[in-house]
Amino acid sequence: MTNPDSAGSDADASTPTAYDDLLERYRRATYLSDANGVLSWDQEVMMPEGGTPARSKQRGAVSAVAHDVLVDEETADALDALDGVDLTDDEAAVVREIRREHERKARVPTELVEEISTATSEAHPVWNEAKAADDFDAFAPTLAELLDLKRRYAEHIDPDADPYATLFAEYEPYLDLSTAERVLEELRDGLVPLIDAIGASDTELYALEGTFPEDDQFAVTEAALETLGYDFEHGRLDTAPHPFSTGTQFDARVTTRFDESEPLDSLASTIHEFGHATYTLGLPRDAYGSPLGEHRGLSVHESQSRLFENHVGRSKPFWELFVDRFNDHHDTELTPQQAYEAANRVYDDNLIRVEADELTYHLHIVLRFEIERELLAGDLDVEEVPAAWNDRMESYLGVRPETDAEGCLQDIHWSHGSFGYFPTYSLGSVLAAQLYAAADEAIDGLESQIAAGEFDALHEWLTENIHQHGRRYTTGDVIERATGEPLTADYFLEYAEAKFGELYDL
Amino acid sequence: MTNPDSAGSDADASTPTAYDDLLERYRRATYLSDANGVLSWDQEVMMPEGGTPARSKQRGAVSAVAHDVLVDEETADALDALDGVDLTDDEAAVVREIRREHERKARVPTELVEEISTATSEAHPVWNEAKAADDFDAFAPTLAELLDLKRRYAEHIDPDADPYATLFAEYEPYLDLSTAERVLEELRDGLVPLIDAIGASDTELYALEGTFPEDDQFAVTEAALETLGYDFEHGRLDTAPHPFSTGTQFDARVTTRFDESEPLDSLASTIHEFGHATYTLGLPRDAYGSPLGEHRGLSVHESQSRLFENHVGRSKPFWELFVDRFNDHHDTELTPQQAYEAANRVYDDNLIRVEADELTYHLHIVLRFEIERELLAGDLDVEEVPAAWNDRMESYLGVRPETDAEGCLQDIHWSHGSFGYFPTYSLGSVLAAQLYAAADEAIDGLESQIAAGEFDALHEWLTENIHQHGRRYTTGDVIERATGEPLTADYFLEYAEAKFGELYDL
Repeated sequence: MTNPDSAGSDADASTPTAYDDLLERYRRATYLSDANGVLSWDQEVMMPEGGTPARSKQRGAVSAVAHDVLVDEETADALDALDGVDLTDDEAAVVREIRREHERKARVPTELVEEISTATSEAHPVWNEAKAADDFDAFAPTLAELLDLKRRYAEHIDPDADPYATLFAEYEPYLDLSTAERVLEELRDGLVPLIDAIGASDTELYALEGTFPEDDQFAVTEAALETLGYDFEHGRLDTAPHPFSTGTQFDARVTTRFDESEPLDSLASTIHEFGHATYTLGLPRDAYGSPLGEHRGLSVHESQSRLFENHVGRSKPFWELFVDRFNDHHDTELTPQQAYEAANRVYDDNLIRVEADELTYHLHIVLRFEIERELLAGDLDVEEVPAAWNDRMESYLGVRPETDAEGCLQDIHWSHGSFGYFPTYSLGSVLAAQLYAAADEAIDGLESQIAAGEFDALHEWLTENIHQHGRRYTTGDVIERATGEPLTADYFLEYAEAKFGELYDL
Repeated sequence: MTNPDSAGSDADASTPTAYDDLLERYRRATYLSDANGVLSWDQEVMMPEGGTPARSKQRGAVSAVAHDVLVDEETADALDALDGVDLTDDEAAVVREIRREHERKARVPTELVEEISTATSEAHPVWNEAKAADDFDAFAPTLAELLDLKRRYAEHIDPDADPYATLFAEYEPYLDLSTAERVLEELRDGLVPLIDAIGASDTELYALEGTFPEDDQFAVTEAALETLGYDFEHGRLDTAPHPFSTGTQFDARVTTRFDESEPLDSLASTIHEFGHATYTLGLPRDAYGSPLGEHRGLSVHESQSRLFENHVGRSKPFWELFVDRFNDHHDTELTPQQAYEAANRVYDDNLIRVEADELTYHLHIVLRFEIERELLAGDLDVEEVPAAWNDRMESYLGVRPETDAEGCLQDIHWSHGSFGYFPTYSLGSVLAAQLYAAADEAIDGLESQIAAGEFDALHEWLTENIHQHGRRYTTGDVIERATGEPLTADYFLEYAEAKFGELYDL
């Protein structure tokens, strides 16, 4: 199909074919992975419970063939043929991304991949029961085994690197672990005194009380998606046990869940997932299947969700815009200021990460990051985790969990073997603040636009600076191109101090 | 994993490994195909319209890898290694089924498969527009191309066979075309005079009139599924543009659709799909992925749907049981007899297959079967199809379509290249009557059980005689084992004459 004569003068005659072959194989792997995304969405949202055994087999088979396509010899040959060859910038970015994925996957023996897959499947119920019984000892041997497996996994990928850095790069390929470390330290050092000051403040923010039926909450979340400009021709909203977003630039879906006493939680988490879906829908459609049509990594993804959740959905202008719709559905009579306060209350005695407010959240992350690093480095034994956890909770937040169920057993991530994932949550928040500041600089009257329900300029700015590039640039380059500087916690801390300083009269 | 020393004395030492390898490969192909079934269900039922381009790619990729696993060299090698080797009956059945699929797929060049795939994708909108414009000429070249492609396809599989027989065997692997021909002739010869007699009868059956809101119809179809014993832990009911059932023995789903003036149609088609789902759910769970865990072919599948649709759902005892629930939801006051009559009206002036009653339906099939055979054999030119269609409609049903949209353009099947599919609908009905007669013989007071809402004995009989065997036996063997004789239209014709003779006072 490609005429060799049309290749550029610097390029080997075989280049176009090797490039086309490589991209075609990668596309197949992407389509297969996205097929698995649909199977997974269905499992969470639609599948009757009895379907589990068959679904596990189906997902396993699709994963296996997607993996095979990426690691097999033909992919390796195409990559070899492209080594050192002159390519356009976009082609070079495509090859860089595929090469990275191929190498990381090809270096890990299939047996180890399978061993990890089996171990994590078995770990999930063990963790679940240990948490229910508040019995860390029951989970400890499993956690030790998963740490060992993931350490071996990381060593296969890069025997010379810090295993934690290798695992972190699974989720955030192009930010150094040292950057993550610096940003998390800045966050910790800035947030601990701010949260202390809030705890010491006499100001009480407005609190929402009452019972808010699920149907009304569903209507409110749907209204919020409409208000923000969610494209229901390319997505849908459903309920699921955990809020998530999944899909492609053609079909990016959102789920939510409800607690009848916390209508602001479902709203915030739906807006969060909307941010993820908006990124996905902003990826270029004509690059579907190629790295240029895929998201840049979890930190950038999380920045899009946090930007909408916090900088839009928890802002004063948003509540000026939205409070009437909220009141209509819930039959409340909130003022914009009351809603704004209720959406921004800081709970410094909360033990649970997923229930944390915008500020204390990051100390939950810092704690996990520090413990994970020490575990992987061998500086902390599994048996010491509960004490290390509780001590840090006391030091950062001034509360000490009375049970491990409310402490180190609360999150599902470790039972998945997902070590190195947590930091991307905070990096995403920090980046959200940095991007929002840049957008605010670039867009005339952004806050008035939000209050007027005009989101086009914001969507356009995000699409132009982030979404449309897919994986064209590395994470650091994306950030610098969009904001003019490297990732920094400064904007988040400035934003937090201004917003909560005003709210709590500090 | 298999110890060669434990192999039977007649078996080559390599047999267990070859058998295990083969089965493992087949399982992977099955899991992938079933994954595609989920993608397809989602597309029909849940997917936002904008998702189509990505979904096509995902389905194409999953199909391609499923196809590759079945035709590749390792599968061929495992089959070769098992050639002539002593196996248990079940193992032999598994190998027979996999060999058949492998050979049929391996014989057709990939290019032709792709050409057919492209041609049918392109044919669908052409057919759709031709039908909307009532312009057969616009579809004729496409139809000619598809016939040519499928003729070539059949010739690759078996150059010596009647191409129509080869295509028919795609859907119904183990019934001779001559059996299909005989049964359809028996049907035609028996039904034409019966339908004439009904047309000449003065008896008017009770007709349902009014508007029946979709929500109420949904509640009625749900109630029918509960009444019949549908397992909602392993299935679900949704609405879709076309009623269908899909899934596995762990998760077999049903869809329905509504016409506000025809509440008995949605009910009948939901019960029809329930029959399909019940077969699927009755396949052995421990054989999931193997041919022993798969359905026996479209005729047997259709027999299960028709048995429940017609012999249960359109029976007097069913309406004695169900009329109250129907009346409750629709606020009607039907007697069981009125409902029974309304569900069994014969419309001898109906032109549309999918709207046909239990009797005239088969003449629609006979007509298509005859035309398809002549087209494939080259005895009928594409241009002659409209006239041939209309002449036969007049001869079999006494009505002549005034447009091709209501005539030879009405069905989607040919635009899919599905020649040879239609007969399985009638073969399924005929088999349903034969099976129901055998079940009635075996189960004490089956009709009273139905009237009392007791379906366990019927489900058990069907599971024991049909479902649990998967593809263990060929279609003919399944029928003979379950009913003691080969497939025959006698039971259907006896049933039809008795039922409609009484209804229409013949």
